[in-house]
Order: sequence, then C-alpha cells, then structure tokens
Amino acid sequence: MNAPAHAQSPLDVLLRLAAVIDGRKPSAGGDPERSYVARLLHKGPDAFLKKVAEEAGEVVMAAKDLQHGTGSPQALVGEVADLWFHSMIALAHFGLGPADVVAELARREGLSGLEEKALRQARAREADAASRPT
Amino acid sequence: MNAPAHAQSPLDVLLRLAAVIDGRKPSAGGDPERSYVARLLHKGPDAFLKKVAEEAGEVVMAAKDLQHGTGSPQALVGEVADLWFHSMIALAHFGLGPADVVAELARREGLSGLEEKALRQARAREADAASRPT
Amino acid sequence: MNAPAHAQSPLDVLLRLAAVIDGRKPSAGGDPERSYVARLLHKGPDAFLKKVAEEAGEVVMAAKDLQHGTGSPQALVGEVADLWFHSMIALAHFGLGPADVVAELARREGLSGLEEKALRQARAREADAASRPT
Amino acid sequence: MNAPAHAQSPLDVLLRLAAVIDGRKPSAGGDPERSYVARLLHKGPDAFLKKVAEEAGEVVMAAKDLQHGTGSPQALVGEVADLWFHSMIALAHFGLGPADVVAELARREGLSGLEEKALRQARAREADAASRPT
Repeated sequence: MNAPAHAQSPLDVLLRLAAVIDGRKPSAGGDPERSYVARLLHKGPDAFLKKVAEEAGEVVMAAKDLQHGTGSPQALVGEVADLWFHSMIALAHFGLGPADVVAELARREGLSGLEEKALRQARAREADAASRPT
Repeated sequence: MNAPAHAQSPLDVLLRLAAVIDGRKPSAGGDPERSYVARLLHKGPDAFLKKVAEEAGEVVMAAKDLQHGTGSPQALVGEVADLWFHSMIALAHFGLGPADVVAELARREGLSGLEEKALRQARAREADAASRPT
Repeated sequence: MNAPAHAQSPLDVLLRLAAVIDGRKPSAGGDPERSYVARLLHKGPDAFLKKVAEEAGEVVMAAKDLQHGTGSPQALVGEVADLWFHSMIALAHFGLGPADVVAELARREGLSGLEEKALRQARAREADAASRPT
Repeated sequence: MNAPAHAQSPLDVLLRLAAVIDGRKPSAGGDPERSYVARLLHKGPDAFLKKVAEEAGEVVMAAKDLQHGTGSPQALVGEVADLWFHSMIALAHFGLGPADVVAELARREGLSGLEEKALRQARAREADAASRPT
C-alpha cells in the first residue's frame, strides 16, 4: 500500500477517537478505575462540562501568549485539541459525535452560511437596539 | 474511484471551511464590511477569543438543558459547531488549522495516548499534593 | 447621620447595586425596553449566564495583556467589575445577592478556611489518583 | 454598641480576605508548600486564570441546576464565592484588590451608569451593523 496518508486521515482520526470514547461509556463497560474518559463519563455532565470551560480558558491563554510573542503554535494546537476532545466526550454522553458537528457545519453550507447566520443575528440585535428607548 | 463519500467527508468539510476562513484574513483581502469572519480577524485576537469563551459557556448550557430533559440534541450540536468554528478562526489567525488539531489528536495515538497524558497529570498532581504539608 | 464613610463603603455599593438589580426584576416591574438589567432578567438564565462566561474570558484576556506588559490595571479592574456585576444579576434571578456570597466567604473563616477546603480537595484528588490502576 | 454584625460586615470580609491573599504573595513570603493561594500566586497567571475560567463554568452549571429545579441556592452561592475568590487572587497578583472593583462599580454611578454603558454598546453595535453591507 502506498497510501499511508489514508491511515492517518483527519476523518479517520476523529471517527476513531469518537468510537474509542463511546467504548468508555458505562453502558459499554467502560471502567472508571482504568480510564480517564470512562471516569469523566461515569461522574456525569458536570465533570466533563467543567473541563470544557477550563479548556476554553486555556485556549484563550495560549492564544494570548502567541499574540504577545511568547508561547508556541504547538501549545495552542494542544489546547484546541483538548477542547475538541472534551467536547467530544460531552457529545458522546448524549449519543452524539463529531460526525454530527461536521454535518451541522456542512449544513450551514460552508462559511457563507455561517456568515449569513451571524449577519442575521447582528441585524436582529440592530432591530432590537433600535426599538429600545434610551 | 468514484468515491463521492470523499466530497462529503468530515475531512473535506473541515478543510474546506478552514480554506474559506483563510480567505477572509486581511492579508488575503478579506473585507470586514462584508464578512463576519473577516470582521473578527480584522479586529484581532480579543474579538474571536471572547467568542470562544462565550461559545464554551453555551455548550455547557445546552448540555445542562439536555441533562435536565429540555433542550434538544441539535441545539448541543449547534453550540459545539459554533465552538469549533470560532476555534478555527483563532487557529487561522496564527497560521494554523484543523489539520494541526487532528494531527495532534493522532499523535497522541488515539484515546489511549490522551488517557496516558491525563493519568500522567493526575499522578503529577498526586505527587504534588503528597509533598505538601497539611 | 454624620457617617459619610458608610455611604461610600464597598458594603454600601454592593448592597445598593443589588437593590437596584432587584428592582429590575420582572416581578418588581422592571421594563426590558428601558433597562439592560431588566432585559437580561426578562430573557432568563441563558442570557446572563452567557455573559458570565464571556466576562470570565475577558478577565483572562485583560490579565494576560497585563502579564505581557500591555493593557492597563484599570482594564482588568473593569473586566472583574463586569464579571461580578453579571454574577450579581444571576444571583438576583434566584433570590440571592452579594451578601450571601460574602457570608459564604466569611463562613469559610477567611482565607485559612478556603485553603483548608482547597487542600481537602487536593488530598481527595490524591487519594483518588492513588487508588487508580495505571 | 450592640451591633455585632459590624464585625462580620461584607466590607470587612472582602478587605480582610484581600489582605490575607496579599500576605500569600511570594514577595510577602507566602510559602507555596503550605498555602493554596501562595501556590497559585507562585505558579503565575495561567494557574489562577485557568481557575477563573473553570469557576465561571461552575457558576453556569449551578445556575442551570437551580433553573431546572435541582441543585441548591447554597451551591450557586458557593460557586460565585469561588469565582470572586479566584478573581481576587488575579487582582492581587497585579497589585489590585476588591476595593478597586467596588470603586469602579461606584464610579459607574450605580446601576444607571452600568446600564448607560451597556446601552451605549448596544447602540454602537447597532450603528456598526447598520453600516455593514449584507
């Protein structure tokens, strides 16, 4: 096989990671004494949601360090990886996964759709503010 | 190969989205008057990092609603999509992208690697706490 | 009464601010068309909780700017003020206020109590990690 | 004077807490091996800013539990106390304290000032959105 890239494709990685996370669910026999993910899933939503909030803060800090010329690109990448990883644990708890997220991004028809949504919201805020007495 | 799946694969969506975001950078001629993403990139880190923090909060809220039997799975998926999307804007500002994040996840050799890291950290905290006078 | 210090004391500011927020509650006749606070309280928890998450992110950013020698002390103070202010709106929604927060801080018997709690948690994490197979 | 409440006044509690935190700074001889606060201050900004982000997430979760009829008011109060406490550690690191925050809240002339600021921002967003091509 001279297609080594396929073995490491981003798609494969995310879906494989999601499959492993699913295998750590209590209903799949995940053992909270042996696995970090099983432990978070066993403890329930507050355990992994706290991590989502914390990792978002770490993304912000790593980005600010880069902005100020310290830190490293790899540190930011690592924090975003942690953030996505813990988001995927939250999704798994509710029977969802990265395929749903990517489908949603696709559903918005690429960036233009996302921008349309953001512009609609900006316009809604505008109408909202315009109707408000000062 | 007539592999239509590739055109719809998560890989393609994420990479295509990253390419669109890159095209909104000031250096690529992105127009802050016409594009939400160009606007965030033009304003600089605080603008999109604030959104990362806010969207993480919205993921937490949507998950809590689901936990309590209200809200919808689609709402959680939408918030995670917003969180990943704004993370990608932050990455793009620093010349990075989702391929880096997925490579990092792969580098950790799937979930076992991530769990090893988490267990290492737990052990470090353990050693740390053990050495602390009470 | 010639006790001008009281009129300017932090106590008075926080309690007066809490009283004004309470007066913005829908049940007190707060008008969402005329008041920012009434508007947030009228929209319900997600509206002001989103702001708590966002303002925490802004505190982090302002502190990172100070750490890196840019930004200003006043900017950090302003972000913490925003964070505390929106926390107080959340408290008010549930019939609580800053007096409860300060009573809790006092109940922990000053910092030593807080540190005891943190050390207890560190020890619990330690025991937790120690009992976990590697 | 039969006003024992004075000994526990909110003002006293916040200022005393700030004084204890200041005494935990490395420059004041705080020992990271004996004190949780000294440890955070010794580690530097990322250590306590991560906690600010995490505690904001916990405030959001406790509030959502209350909204859904579970959890307890005291749990929310405890999380806000944690959030304010870690904010004060961040302030202390930069030579600031709760008196500065309260002065800022007072400077905004009570809630009306805060609302004026929020309305100004809403109007700015409005003008901003209005000038943007769709």
